[in-house]
Amino acid sequence: MTTTRQQLLAQVRQLSETLCAPLALEDYGLQAMADTSPAKWHLAHTTWFFETFILKRFDRNYRPWHPQFEVLFNSYYNGIGEQYPRAQRALLSRPAVSEVMNWRQAVTEAVLNLLDTPPAGIEALVDLGMHHEQQHQELFFTDLKYNFSHNPLYPAYANGPEVFAKAAAQPCSWQTHRGGEVEIGHRGAGFCFDNETPAHPALLQDFVLADSLVSNADYLEFIADGGYQRPELWLADGWATVMEQKWQTPLYWVQSEQQWFEFTLHGLQPLDPQRPVSHVSAYEADAYCRWAGARLPSEYEWEYAARQAPLTGQFLESGCYHPRSTASGELHGTLWQWTSSAYAPYPGYKTPKGAVGEYNGKFMVNQLVLRGGSCVSSANHIRSTYRNFFYPADRWQFTGIRMAKWP
Amino acid sequence: MTTTRQQLLAQVRQLSETLCAPLALEDYGLQAMADTSPAKWHLAHTTWFFETFILKRFDRNYRPWHPQFEVLFNSYYNGIGEQYPRAQRALLSRPAVSEVMNWRQAVTEAVLNLLDTPPAGIEALVDLGMHHEQQHQELFFTDLKYNFSHNPLYPAYANGPEVFAKAAAQPCSWQTHRGGEVEIGHRGAGFCFDNETPAHPALLQDFVLADSLVSNADYLEFIADGGYQRPELWLADGWATVMEQKWQTPLYWVQSEQQWFEFTLHGLQPLDPQRPVSHVSAYEADAYCRWAGARLPSEYEWEYAARQAPLTGQFLESGCYHPRSTASGELHGTLWQWTSSAYAPYPGYKTPKGAVGEYNGKFMVNQLVLRGGSCVSSANHIRSTYRNFFYPADRWQFTGIRMAKWP
Amino acid sequence: MTTTRQQLLAQVRQLSETLCAPLALEDYGLQAMADTSPAKWHLAHTTWFFETFILKRFDRNYRPWHPQFEVLFNSYYNGIGEQYPRAQRALLSRPAVSEVMNWRQAVTEAVLNLLDTPPAGIEALVDLGMHHEQQHQELFFTDLKYNFSHNPLYPAYANGPEVFAKAAAQPCSWQTHRGGEVEIGHRGAGFCFDNETPAHPALLQDFVLADSLVSNADYLEFIADGGYQRPELWLADGWATVMEQKWQTPLYWVQSEQQWFEFTLHGLQPLDPQRPVSHVSAYEADAYCRWAGARLPSEYEWEYAARQAPLTGQFLESGCYHPRSTASGELHGTLWQWTSSAYAPYPGYKTPKGAVGEYNGKFMVNQLVLRGGSCVSSANHIRSTYRNFFYPADRWQFTGIRMAKWP
Amino acid sequence: MTTTRQQLLAQVRQLSETLCAPLALEDYGLQAMADTSPAKWHLAHTTWFFETFILKRFDRNYRPWHPQFEVLFNSYYNGIGEQYPRAQRALLSRPAVSEVMNWRQAVTEAVLNLLDTPPAGIEALVDLGMHHEQQHQELFFTDLKYNFSHNPLYPAYANGPEVFAKAAAQPCSWQTHRGGEVEIGHRGAGFCFDNETPAHPALLQDFVLADSLVSNADYLEFIADGGYQRPELWLADGWATVMEQKWQTPLYWVQSEQQWFEFTLHGLQPLDPQRPVSHVSAYEADAYCRWAGARLPSEYEWEYAARQAPLTGQFLESGCYHPRSTASGELHGTLWQWTSSAYAPYPGYKTPKGAVGEYNGKFMVNQLVLRGGSCVSSANHIRSTYRNFFYPADRWQFTGIRMAKWP
Repeated sequence: MTTTRQQLLAQVRQLSETLCAPLALEDYGLQAMADTSPAKWHLAHTTWFFETFILKRFDRNYRPWHPQFEVLFNSYYNGIGEQYPRAQRALLSRPAVSEVMNWRQAVTEAVLNLLDTPPAGIEALVDLGMHHEQQHQELFFTDLKYNFSHNPLYPAYANGPEVFAKAAAQPCSWQTHRGGEVEIGHRGAGFCFDNETPAHPALLQDFVLADSLVSNADYLEFIADGGYQRPELWLADGWATVMEQKWQTPLYWVQSEQQWFEFTLHGLQPLDPQRPVSHVSAYEADAYCRWAGARLPSEYEWEYAARQAPLTGQFLESGCYHPRSTASGELHGTLWQWTSSAYAPYPGYKTPKGAVGEYNGKFMVNQLVLRGGSCVSSANHIRSTYRNFFYPADRWQFTGIRMAKWP
Repeated sequence: MTTTRQQLLAQVRQLSETLCAPLALEDYGLQAMADTSPAKWHLAHTTWFFETFILKRFDRNYRPWHPQFEVLFNSYYNGIGEQYPRAQRALLSRPAVSEVMNWRQAVTEAVLNLLDTPPAGIEALVDLGMHHEQQHQELFFTDLKYNFSHNPLYPAYANGPEVFAKAAAQPCSWQTHRGGEVEIGHRGAGFCFDNETPAHPALLQDFVLADSLVSNADYLEFIADGGYQRPELWLADGWATVMEQKWQTPLYWVQSEQQWFEFTLHGLQPLDPQRPVSHVSAYEADAYCRWAGARLPSEYEWEYAARQAPLTGQFLESGCYHPRSTASGELHGTLWQWTSSAYAPYPGYKTPKGAVGEYNGKFMVNQLVLRGGSCVSSANHIRSTYRNFFYPADRWQFTGIRMAKWP
Repeated sequence: MTTTRQQLLAQVRQLSETLCAPLALEDYGLQAMADTSPAKWHLAHTTWFFETFILKRFDRNYRPWHPQFEVLFNSYYNGIGEQYPRAQRALLSRPAVSEVMNWRQAVTEAVLNLLDTPPAGIEALVDLGMHHEQQHQELFFTDLKYNFSHNPLYPAYANGPEVFAKAAAQPCSWQTHRGGEVEIGHRGAGFCFDNETPAHPALLQDFVLADSLVSNADYLEFIADGGYQRPELWLADGWATVMEQKWQTPLYWVQSEQQWFEFTLHGLQPLDPQRPVSHVSAYEADAYCRWAGARLPSEYEWEYAARQAPLTGQFLESGCYHPRSTASGELHGTLWQWTSSAYAPYPGYKTPKGAVGEYNGKFMVNQLVLRGGSCVSSANHIRSTYRNFFYPADRWQFTGIRMAKWP
Repeated sequence: MTTTRQQLLAQVRQLSETLCAPLALEDYGLQAMADTSPAKWHLAHTTWFFETFILKRFDRNYRPWHPQFEVLFNSYYNGIGEQYPRAQRALLSRPAVSEVMNWRQAVTEAVLNLLDTPPAGIEALVDLGMHHEQQHQELFFTDLKYNFSHNPLYPAYANGPEVFAKAAAQPCSWQTHRGGEVEIGHRGAGFCFDNETPAHPALLQDFVLADSLVSNADYLEFIADGGYQRPELWLADGWATVMEQKWQTPLYWVQSEQQWFEFTLHGLQPLDPQRPVSHVSAYEADAYCRWAGARLPSEYEWEYAARQAPLTGQFLESGCYHPRSTASGELHGTLWQWTSSAYAPYPGYKTPKGAVGEYNGKFMVNQLVLRGGSCVSSANHIRSTYRNFFYPADRWQFTGIRMAKWP
């Protein structure tokens, strides 16, 4: 018995609210930087998405919940209209959380009703809305972690010492892949984002890929060897960032006397050397690889290898929101992996028409592709062809390092 | 029957909480700029003040509520220790409001208990703590107004169309004062801040003072006459600010098609021409005076005139948190009035010893003195000798303009 | 009779000085932004390069000219040591121009002497030094133009109304190229930079390339059609830059009443519609293409097409330092052409060892590749495989737009 | 035989050029921050002043030298028109120095000619122009020193080891002054600036004034006692500046291994403990006084004491552009002395009409008054009533510390 679109939609909508349950009401408005939205804003924006792109178009009886919400909860769709300033989202103490929840329910019900007799063209937009909401569920975690991290009380989103059982040691070994002409991108049925298309041939040279992620223990060696003090290991823009931001460690590391701690969604925890290093920028990932005599994989190399790997790994459903060790050869889940590839359109890529076309295409400059998903991604949200993208200096995502080499 | 110190303390402490009652829980954390603290922070900091300066010193049995609150809620007392960054106070979603309220109660009770048999030296600090809390009650209003103003939904802190009954027209007339040697500053019994001392003689020349505040109608004429476009009317630093901040009106004015509105603690309201203009910087106040052929009074002139005026006016107790018209010759209340005087120590002023000495003295540079109190000051907090001080570009306080002239 | 390396070196070194001849002594120190170095600094830095990488290594008798010049004229070689702050180069009024010229002569002579009996390994470094100096000759022009442009007197570097004879109209036609596996990168004898290697196979799809550059007339249509006001035409980072920088035209356009002018190295000149549009960012180039229903070519597409084109075009030697029309199918010279390709290492690329390794490799992030050379490049400096690179927002280089399309 | 106005004018104009004689042509354009203008700009602006306020008004035959110079060399006179951006003055490599010198000569001659039969009202403006030029002669020195200081070669404006003969030790003693009603401000014949008027009575309390300036040796004790690490010694804005700017010493001190040096207009010199400490901000001056149990004098106290002191001291004419020890009780010359007084209008002050009115009045906010003149002031430029003014954080002027106390 397959899950219907209506059931899936109800599940996805419900999950956003379930994830918020552990929060105090005071937590919903936190925003420590322009990039990290408040939890309430995520709840509202995902609702805005369905209201704007589906209800306003397909439901003649639907009346927008509030005339100003179109502006307040528009993220970046210029085709829809102006947007409340991104950096000021914490200032929206109103609407209250309760009103946003009421709005959510009304919108969910209205879309579910529409799906009883779905008008032509609605399914693709509902699917997009669900995957969009799953992206914001991941952002809920990454943003909350960043926002909480500024509080010296180190609030814990979730308890669970058991999830912090010491991870197993995991020796890194290398897997050699033969090059040649391969197909890249998404083809066939099943949802994908526009940026995964069109599928197209690409030429790969032989390459070698690590079958596990770089661990905290590995990264401690890099630090001990002066990694953050040696410009020759860094890209020029990376070194400038190290100097300017005074980076000395990954984002959430805290040194207390003689011990390292790491801020996690489970509170402040002793740094576990066996776990994969997380919350590193692409600059740090690149510098680490250079130090280790390796390099970052291209997104084509990664995808080619990932197609041969199982779609298993640590996802949101594990209930542990901090990376555990990966199994050997496990490419998906646990941590997003920086690639050396600039985020760019695939040959023949066409931006979809209308405001929905702003979803992906307009960001195709200055960012790098990440692959694999993370421990705060939903399992059914991730594919081998999935392309995530962030600026090389970004560290608040669940990012890690998988090394590659030439043979 | 006089009010005892214990009764007063209980009243002041209670008022802080009563003033917060209309807020939604989501509102307590708002902070739109570094200068405007969240409501919860005001509740906590005033409690910190009693815990730090009284309980830690006089109560051997008192155990600090939480070891990190000393840092989190220290405003600027370097003598106590380091401070959580001012601009990040909105990031402290924890402690929750409920915990702060519990802390408040415990501290209030502990201080009240101490006052049963007051140890030597405690009274002056309790009085300081109460006046300190009254200052933060006023800041609660000014900060909330500023923080709410960034929300396009324009939340109203208080209802009350009746308080917006059109104010009575109030023709400005002038009062001439004879100069000579006068006494300035506080002398005798009753509480005052250190910066009002020592009382000392000063020499005044004859001067003329307006017996009412500049009205919105007056200020609209200044605007219509190109006030914000004519550099010759402005101090150089003022003009630079006008250019940089693109000032065109006082802080909370909103132009909607052909009508002016003003954001108030009672929501967005049509601009009432008869009310005094409010939320202007000293630069605007100075430019307006220059345009009108007048000048700002010195703080000595103001104090000398105020000593002859009744201590009546619109204060917090009126329940109207927006300035009404003043009665002729009413110098206190309604709006703080910019003076031309730089905030500086009186001759012979000595900074008190210890961390409490940081209360006033260290701010005696770069700021201007304001006099009179406002509609969000407690009536029993204001004196003719009271010296308030802000930077000349500040506009989020309840500030207005009283003109002076040479005869 | 071939030119010897010594002759070439003498010519290149002489050219730097010849190019400076039209300057007033006051012009040598101009620096309008961190990216644009003073002319004197270019003269000194290219000398530093020979002193640092050749004389200090190969000439035991050579004594560095001044102990502090190693720091003052080091651009970005951390492997050599610290650097005088880039943004402050205009503050180095000393050493005087005359001393820099003396230093130049001493260094040139010392290197020429070494080449009488060249030690092993010196040739490659001398060649690198010459091509490095040619790059700075181009930067001399681009920087001077930018620095002069801030002076309302609009100084002209060179006269010559004849070079401004109205350019011929040039209709744009399109050339279709068949895809397939092609070789990219430099192979064989002759100088190239490390970033052009290794030569490697690549897979191209069929593509169409414009045989001329976008003209000012074309670009005026884009502007007239609201090009700078329509976010849907822009990459997100591009649009943010347009808003922030208030871009309305290419960099050097000046509107005077009803006529367009363009600041050039030949002074302020009426905008010639037939000339190619120049000094546009990659954001503008991309937006223009989107508006025109086209796209930017990849660097692979460009190189593949360029290999079939003659190595002719407008170069520095023309004496005209402003772009003229290109001949149909002329891909080299005139203006650098933005590609859609992020600047990244070719498969198998290895950074050379030592400080010289900082020349190219560490910049391989956040920048885009430009191809073709410009009217201020030396003709013998340019190759089809040559990869130039700048940030997408950069506009002070001689950059233009060549469009591509899918068939 | 008295000097005529024509002779004086010729002398003042000549001095500006004589002072520039030691410069290399490359030095004329230096500008290390917006506050420090290039030497060439000073030469041009002082010429602009005469052209704008005198020749354009009084000389019908005079034709402005260049139509754009009115904008290029206007400092801040909005009444005249717009101004070339202050921070970009170094970008004006043209007009060349030689052209500015020609312009100077033409303007000087035209004004001298006018003075043969002086039109009514011209004398006061000529006098103002001369004193204005003397102010810029002092700024020439202060700006050049600051601009040179960024060059690691430490250029020397003037030689002269003899001027660096070790200064004599000078014990600090205190002079008590009786208070009472005194007259402040300029009265009678002789030139003064508008800000010195009107003369008016003021009431002083008894005070004590140091008869010498704080020495480097004194200041070293302050540093050794943790002066720059103890917030309790500082005004709040001062401490914020110390933290932000990372101040550890006065502006030009350089620590080299175990010795202190000081950058001077005579090059880098060993720090002489006996000389007065110079190039300190008002914040540092205030902190030093607090540490020493003293305070800064008010400008009224200073003026009252100065009227009883001789008008002697170290001025520009000494040929030593670095402060020597002062004689006991010598209040004028050597170094400007910070006072505790905010720069504000005297009672009854009226801004002069027209653009000349922008000379002083519009700066009367946010700045502090300095008194006394310095070793780079012309002797005949200084009076006891002279009010100089700078922001409390400014350090590039020749500023020092004279302490005061209550009896």
